[in-house]
Amino acid sequence: MPTAVPDRLLLGSGPSPVPARVLEALSQPTIGHLDPAFGALMDETADLLRRTFGTGNRATLPISGTGSAGMDAMVANFVRPEDRVVVGVNGLFGERLADALGRAGAAVRRVEAEWGRAIDTDALLDAAEDGLDAMCVVHGETSTGVCQPLDGLGDACRKRDALLLVDCVTSLAGQRLLLDEAGVDAAFSGSQKCLNCPPGLAPFTAGERAIERIGGSRSWYFDLSLVLGYWDGDGGRAYHHTAPINMVYALREALLLVHEEGLDARWERHGRAHAALRAALSELGIERIAPDGEELHPLLAVRVPAGVDEAAVRRGLLDRHGIEISGGLGPLAGTAWRIGVMGSGAEHGPQERLVEALCAELGRDPAGPLSALEEGWG
Amino acid sequence: MPTAVPDRLLLGSGPSPVPARVLEALSQPTIGHLDPAFGALMDETADLLRRTFGTGNRATLPISGTGSAGMDAMVANFVRPEDRVVVGVNGLFGERLADALGRAGAAVRRVEAEWGRAIDTDALLDAAEDGLDAMCVVHGETSTGVCQPLDGLGDACRKRDALLLVDCVTSLAGQRLLLDEAGVDAAFSGSQKCLNCPPGLAPFTAGERAIERIGGSRSWYFDLSLVLGYWDGDGGRAYHHTAPINMVYALREALLLVHEEGLDARWERHGRAHAALRAALSELGIERIAPDGEELHPLLAVRVPAGVDEAAVRRGLLDRHGIEISGGLGPLAGTAWRIGVMGSGAEHGPQERLVEALCAELGRDPAGPLSALEEGWG
Repeated sequence: MPTAVPDRLLLGSGPSPVPARVLEALSQPTIGHLDPAFGALMDETADLLRRTFGTGNRATLPISGTGSAGMDAMVANFVRPEDRVVVGVNGLFGERLADALGRAGAAVRRVEAEWGRAIDTDALLDAAEDGLDAMCVVHGETSTGVCQPLDGLGDACRKRDALLLVDCVTSLAGQRLLLDEAGVDAAFSGSQKCLNCPPGLAPFTAGERAIERIGGSRSWYFDLSLVLGYWDGDGGRAYHHTAPINMVYALREALLLVHEEGLDARWERHGRAHAALRAALSELGIERIAPDGEELHPLLAVRVPAGVDEAAVRRGLLDRHGIEISGGLGPLAGTAWRIGVMGSGAEHGPQERLVEALCAELGRDPAGPLSALEEGWG
Repeated sequence: MPTAVPDRLLLGSGPSPVPARVLEALSQPTIGHLDPAFGALMDETADLLRRTFGTGNRATLPISGTGSAGMDAMVANFVRPEDRVVVGVNGLFGERLADALGRAGAAVRRVEAEWGRAIDTDALLDAAEDGLDAMCVVHGETSTGVCQPLDGLGDACRKRDALLLVDCVTSLAGQRLLLDEAGVDAAFSGSQKCLNCPPGLAPFTAGERAIERIGGSRSWYFDLSLVLGYWDGDGGRAYHHTAPINMVYALREALLLVHEEGLDARWERHGRAHAALRAALSELGIERIAPDGEELHPLLAVRVPAGVDEAAVRRGLLDRHGIEISGGLGPLAGTAWRIGVMGSGAEHGPQERLVEALCAELGRDPAGPLSALEEGWG
């Protein structure tokens, strides 16, 4: 029987809505991973990724796994046992980084903030004072909808010959970030957030200061010294593992869509979409968790009003309206909704459907929220 | 511009030809990784994988990466530092296993055979005599076209409380293998060989004796104690990483095709296709590397006749006929062709196209080879 999937509007924490053009690219006939025609697509994909990351790093490629595979690859290649690593923890994905660093045998120093707040930059800089080999931060904390400022971190790391390593899974192409400008040495993302590609690839980049550390990877699959022999076309393509061919087609198409719009316009649209949806929800007494200035545009995390059954509303949205939003995680479980504002989901139309459906589930009049939404979109 | 890929007949070492039904499944709309509708597809996929592996193992799932990710997952979860591990090495993929085991800190004992030959079972059993924690073998050695017999290995491992860990990337669904019957404790495969799915997933299974060893994974991404919390539906699905949704659609469809044919019929067809193509090539003086009884049906590795430019013919097949075959690796580089006999590539039609094209490139009369092929297909 053919694969039957229900009609869904994906406005959760990801995956995000995948445009028809990307699905069409995904289903083009598979060709070989050493076919010169595939090599040309790889080169284009890497170039598009460089533009998206805002980097000139030669070592830029999609890791063959989902976003967290990018994290594992980053830690496996750039963090050595006993390395002193400062890690910012203010949500699930900071915790995950700390976990991965611990598994790698690093001496981990956590700098924390409560879930829903950015980490104080001075606290990160203070922690670096004693010397460090790397600092890891999550630019877009998907569990709380908080964007972590990177100002000053790159300089501080460079001064101490340390690496600045960044998780930009949810922020890439959805909120202003130019890695070279920010002094980031390596970063990973996911295909299924603001890039609107299906999950399965982790966009990844590393600069020369990071590449110099390569050598002791415990992982064969993520060993960049081997992976780059395949992705770095100038010296020929040495077989490492079989690339996920069709997923690369899809990522390339998704990146073409990003750059047809333009990064600046795309960042601006995500900011506007975030503000418009926030205003609409505010009419319902549903308020954002992150304070002004700390918000992550692609992910609007809000507090569920008292007396509302979080899971029941979310299930109602899915079952009766075909709309997916996400619940809270960790300390926010049961008290938060996380709403994706990602790529083609960051448009007036999908947001209107969500506001109408949410009002129906809450038994509220949609007029006020809808007009606030429209006003937000101008 | 839309993704333009050339028309290719994939008769190399993989990826193999992907049927239209699988590409269509691949491009169904993406839904959420925690959507109950996706959970149902996951359960079906896991059940189909169990039937394909010939196992009742509850821990059966596709690892979110290509075949080698399955290897990394196997080693990360079941091999501990200082473990005594016997590994069979008679080709590139045995070497790769030995490499991964070394990275994990295991005390590796290599049992070798020359490239192109199976490893002597007695040599493997002898190596186990001193005691061991695990034995790793490659069932289908893709670099040489050799199938490794597993007879006696499972019992020997059980007797010593050791695990039998198997790479069946190229053999799964293409050559007889029933893991429970063979006493295999854990195994991994790839989606892009005899399953005819695009690359991007590593079918994986582990029995209770292996699962008991879980606990010290250096990798966060491949940590089965976390991955199983998501794939094991009975206790609810705990979010670990975002599954590659569309690739799971495709794998499920590919597995449905396998079981519409039936495993026995599929194994038999691969044997027939291998023999028919071998007979046709033999007419051209192109002989198989593996001796009788050691051949891997899904991968026919042959010696390039003296005086023939291996790479030029291979490039001619690709450029003038749109047919991909693979060259030799390691000690066989420049002197071997590796021809895939995998799934929908293991049919009379595609093989006829290959034989005709090869004769054209070699300047030989195709009549004899084509009639040998036809005879082989009966």
